[in-house]
This record gives sequence, structure tokens and C-alpha cells, in this order.
Amino acid sequence: MTDRVALLPSGFRDRLPPAAEAASALTRTLVDGFAARGYERVSPPLVEHEAGLASWLGKPLGGALFRTTDPTTGEGLALRPDITGQVARIAATRLAAAPRPLRLAYAGPVLRGRAGQLSPERELTQTGAELIGTDDVAALAELITTAVEALTAAGVSGLSVDLTTPDLVAELAAVPWPVSDLPGLLAALDGKDWGLLEIRERAPYRALLEAAGEAANALPLLAKIAPDLSARLAALAALLPGVRITIDPTERHGFEYHSWCAFSLFGHVNGQPLRAEIGRGGAYRVRHPDGTEERAAGVSLYVDMLVDAGLGASARRRIFLPEGTLTETGAQLRADGWATVQALSPDDSAEGCSHVWNGREAVAKG
Amino acid sequence: MTDRVALLPSGFRDRLPPAAEAASALTRTLVDGFAARGYERVSPPLVEHEAGLASWLGKPLGGALFRTTDPTTGEGLALRPDITGQVARIAATRLAAAPRPLRLAYAGPVLRGRAGQLSPERELTQTGAELIGTDDVAALAELITTAVEALTAAGVSGLSVDLTTPDLVAELAAVPWPVSDLPGLLAALDGKDWGLLEIRERAPYRALLEAAGEAANALPLLAKIAPDLSARLAALAALLPGVRITIDPTERHGFEYHSWCAFSLFGHVNGQPLRAEIGRGGAYRVRHPDGTEERAAGVSLYVDMLVDAGLGASARRRIFLPEGTLTETGAQLRADGWATVQALSPDDSAEGCSHVWNGREAVAKG
Repeated sequence: MTDRVALLPSGFRDRLPPAAEAASALTRTLVDGFAARGYERVSPPLVEHEAGLASWLGKPLGGALFRTTDPTTGEGLALRPDITGQVARIAATRLAAAPRPLRLAYAGPVLRGRAGQLSPERELTQTGAELIGTDDVAALAELITTAVEALTAAGVSGLSVDLTTPDLVAELAAVPWPVSDLPGLLAALDGKDWGLLEIRERAPYRALLEAAGEAANALPLLAKIAPDLSARLAALAALLPGVRITIDPTERHGFEYHSWCAFSLFGHVNGQPLRAEIGRGGAYRVRHPDGTEERAAGVSLYVDMLVDAGLGASARRRIFLPEGTLTETGAQLRADGWATVQALSPDDSAEGCSHVWNGREAVAKG
Repeated sequence: MTDRVALLPSGFRDRLPPAAEAASALTRTLVDGFAARGYERVSPPLVEHEAGLASWLGKPLGGALFRTTDPTTGEGLALRPDITGQVARIAATRLAAAPRPLRLAYAGPVLRGRAGQLSPERELTQTGAELIGTDDVAALAELITTAVEALTAAGVSGLSVDLTTPDLVAELAAVPWPVSDLPGLLAALDGKDWGLLEIRERAPYRALLEAAGEAANALPLLAKIAPDLSARLAALAALLPGVRITIDPTERHGFEYHSWCAFSLFGHVNGQPLRAEIGRGGAYRVRHPDGTEERAAGVSLYVDMLVDAGLGASARRRIFLPEGTLTETGAQLRADGWATVQALSPDDSAEGCSHVWNGREAVAKG
């Protein structure tokens, strides 16, 4: 047994007490929040045919996959990098006949072949809600409200939403602002690189970069470029009272499959801003086996950053029961919410316990 | 998009509503049962170096693995087929200095390269508790009691325990009943094949097959062969009042890494016996990096069979809120434990809801 054996692969980690329980409790809180709004849980498998993982969203998933060969059948399979596409598969196949809008929720691990820019982790806990059959303003407002409520219940405060418009640049490049090099334009906008927008045919897009920031300031500027879209975003913002809304019409990073509107969620824990977005979502299309597309919208939340920020800690008190403590005493303490640690030998210590049973009552350790 | 894309790999499945939520709720109930007895949750990763997965138990794990190549590093990795070995790794490394006995719990998916005899599933939810630092009668009694309590809370009744003695045959074959072909003897005993025990040197082992059944009958017979072991099993049975105990001293299937005593748990749901064991466990050794071995014991429970038997169903009522329902009304209903389904358009139907809000109160659908 070498040191290498003890080392986990890059981007994988053990959660120890109390973080492992916190992760589980937080996930439960978020899924309960989705359930309260009618989103019913589905649980797709960790492993699928690679083609099946990619085929159900209107646009392909990006990123490297962990691939595996089925030891029984020899088939090539992949570990899921995301659960939204799997929920789309379920909606398009097994639940194709269920009434719309269809509300589904999920939680579980996802695996990414390459770590993201902000985190080395490659196994993440993803939880989310998908609303199949509609992608309008009311749908997005329900999803954002549901996420905000669930995150508030989990202990996140000061939540804000950054709204983006993934389809907008390509639509403007079709009409009225044609460009000869759409990928080059998108790269310039991604980098918010004003210099690369000096090229004459790109010049109108500088107005898009200016139409960013607080919704009250940005939406009137966006209205000059895309009045209908600006009006829809204003209607969405009006349905989200109490949530700070910003607009970033050129942001595309991480919104591979989204359409007219997408969003990122930001928040604070214990007064400190979280280092990255807590979740993201937006409108997208589900591809059905018959080739039709169905409107949908969803939100995904990442639990790990919330655990790392200290949320989800359990309040369960822990009491040491010396040898000879009556069975009934332990049962009563557990019924009262204690975790009991029964001594199995005279040598067992109360280390790690907050209290000790003295034969008559729980005594806090000095 | 072909039919093949819609087909999940053999042995994998989607859990739909309400089974997906039942699986989650059942897992929570079982882990809460472990927590009540002081078992704190750890959460190891889904993917590890293959050598690391195998090296921490005193005996190797059997069975085919799903293997993968890390797309970032090119290293060969494997998906975990079991979590007990990972918990042993944590106990032997990151928690090597934590006081003993160390109580750890876990829950999560495991992947098996080949399906078992009784079930086609290759992705299973495993939950369990491990007690590191002791493997004596008191340790096994605590683990079995904890599992029985947790399963009872989850809705399983009529629990019984089948005790086995994985090390016994090899010990007898050393002294006093030597055999020239130990694997042949083990195969004969595994098959409970009396014919194969006609060979003279194997004849004494027929008494082992006879020492099986209800503890009250079997333990006196086992006492003639292995008096100390029989006494320890009798002491264990005495610590488990109210649980039916059977003895099967030659059963080895599925106990690859267990030592002096192991067990299987059986039970009933709604009066019907479950088709296979709900869980198993026993005494084992944790291998430390310095080559020493530490006594330990654990129990693993399989959640999927309990879900398939109908346990874990949620009682949350579901109410349809027509367009125009006040925000405060929905919030109050959710606070009262309802799942609310807000209409997003005049076309939305109350299908799937048990109740409808009529503007003043919840009305059950006729």
C-alpha cells in the first residue's frame, strides 16, 4: 500500500463529519422547497449511453465526460455531467403523455471530466427543478421564486439574479446587424473587449455591452435594441419583488443550451458574498423522439459551495452513555432528539460528545 | 435520435414520482436511525483509483467493476462497487487519530459491473454504519440493533437475523479437520451438497451443515464443534431480544471480507416477506497504511428493494391554485404542509392534484 493509494484522484474528495451531513441536509432542504411548489422528484441513473445523455436538449452539452465500458455488455457508456438533460429525456419519453406544464425535481451527483475555472471539484451535487411545457415569463418567475425561497430556507441571504439573453446576439446578427464572423463577434462580447468591437460591422453591438447592469438602468437601453425582449425581462423583474435584478445581455458562459432568457443566482452566507453563482437556469427546448421541440425552463443549484460556506450544520446534541445505562434511557434520549453514544467497554471515552449521562440526567461536559 | 438512445443501459433505471421521493425519504430515515446511535455521516467520492478501492479491507472485494479513464490526467479509475471499503480508507487515513470506537455512517449510489442473482439492478443505493476499533459481541449487537431500529422506523416488520461464521471452515481445516482441497470443501458447503461431503476427510463437516437453523436448536450443535464461537453467538443472540435469530455456519456468499461473524437481515413489508436480504454486515478488519490491522464491524442496507416494496411514500397533499390566487394564500398553504401547483395560464389543469383552491378554501376533487 503506497501513498498514492491514499490519494484521491484530482478533483475528488471525502466529506467528513459534519460536512457530509450538512450536504445531505442542505440537499433535502432544497428539494423540499421544490416539492412545496409541486415539483416531483425523479431519479435518473448515474450512467447512460453517451448519445442518450446529449440528445434531449435543443443544443448540445459541452465539456469533457468520464466514459466507461460496460463490463457486462461491452457498450460504451458515460457518467452524467448534468441532470437537466436526463430530466428532459424522461419528459420526452416515459412522461411524454403526462399533462403540461410538468414539474419535476432532482438531486444527485454529477461528474465532470475537467474542473471549472472557479472550483477544482469534479464530483458535484446538483439539485434542480424543471418546468416542461412552457418557457414564458410566468414560468421563469416561478422557477426563480422557487429557487430563492428554497435557498432562503437553506440559510442564503441577499439573493440576486443576473438575467442573460443567450439567443439575442445570434438573432441580431441575422437581422438587423449582420456580421461576417459570428464566432469572432461572440468571442469579443464574451471578453467584453471594446477594442475588438471597433470593426465597423460590430460597432452596433457596443450598445449591447452598455445595456448591462441594474435592471432599472439597463432595460431602457436594451429596449432601444430589442424592445420586445426588454419588455419581457421587465415583466419578469416585476414578478420578482424583493430580489435584486441585474441584466447582462451578452453573457453566454455556461448557458450552452438555453434560449431566450437565462439567469444566474448569487447570494450571501453570514453576510459574506459567495465566491461564485449558486445556481443557474433559464428557458430551453426539449427535443422529442419525433423531432418536435417543446418549450421548457429550469433551474439548477450547486450544493457544495453552500456546504463549504458553512450551511446545513446539524444541531443534534451528542450524549455519552456509560456501560450499564438502561436500554430505556437511551431510547428516551433518542426520542427526545439526542444522538446517543453507548459505551461498549469500560475503556470507551466520552470524547466527541457534548454531554454525559450520569445515571439520572444529561450533564454538559465541563 | 433512435430508439436505442431512449433505452437505458441494462441494469439502470429511472425512478419516477413517487418512487424517487420514496427512495430519498427512506434513505433519510435509515441514516437518521444511524445518527441517533451516534454514527456520523461521511461521504466518499463515486470514483477512486482502483487500488485504493480494494486495499483497505482485510480481504479483497469481489465482482466486476465499472472502470473509467480520467479525461484530465489519463489515470485509470473505478466506480465504487461498495462504500464500506471507502469508509475503511477514511478511518485508516484521515480519521486515523480519531478516538475509537469510531462510528461512521454513509449513504449513496454504488455501481456493480455485473447484476446479482436476485436483481438486475447495477446501480443501487447503499446506506450503512461502520464501527471502527472493535468487532466483539457488543459491537455486533449495537449494529444489528441500530439496523433493526432504523428499518422498523422505515416500515419494515418481522425482522430476523441470519448469523454466519465466515472464518470457521478455514479454521477447522487448519486444526482439527485438515483437508487436501479447501476450495473443493468450500464449494461443497456452499452448495450444501451432502454427496460431495462423502469424501472421508470432509465427513466431519457434515456436522456443520446440521448446525444450522433456529439459534436455540443450532447453537448446541455448533457448541460440539466450536464451543467458544457458539458461546459468543449465544451471547450475541441474548443481546437481541425480540429478533428472530437463525444460524448458518457455512454460508459465505457475499461475505468476502468478513471474519468471525457476519449476518444477513430479513424482513416483511405489509405482511409479505421481502424476496431477499435487506442488508448484511459483520466483523472485518481495516488495513492501515503501516500494515497493521484494526478490528471493525459494520452493516449495509439496500434501499431499492424497500422502495420497490412500497415503503417511503410521501403523504404531502397537492393543491391546484387557479390564476389570480394571492401570493399569501400559496405561502400559507405551503407553510401548512401542502404542495401548491400555481396555474401559469388559463389552460393549466388541476390534473394530478388532490385538491383545488376555490378562493376561500381547499376543496377535495370529486
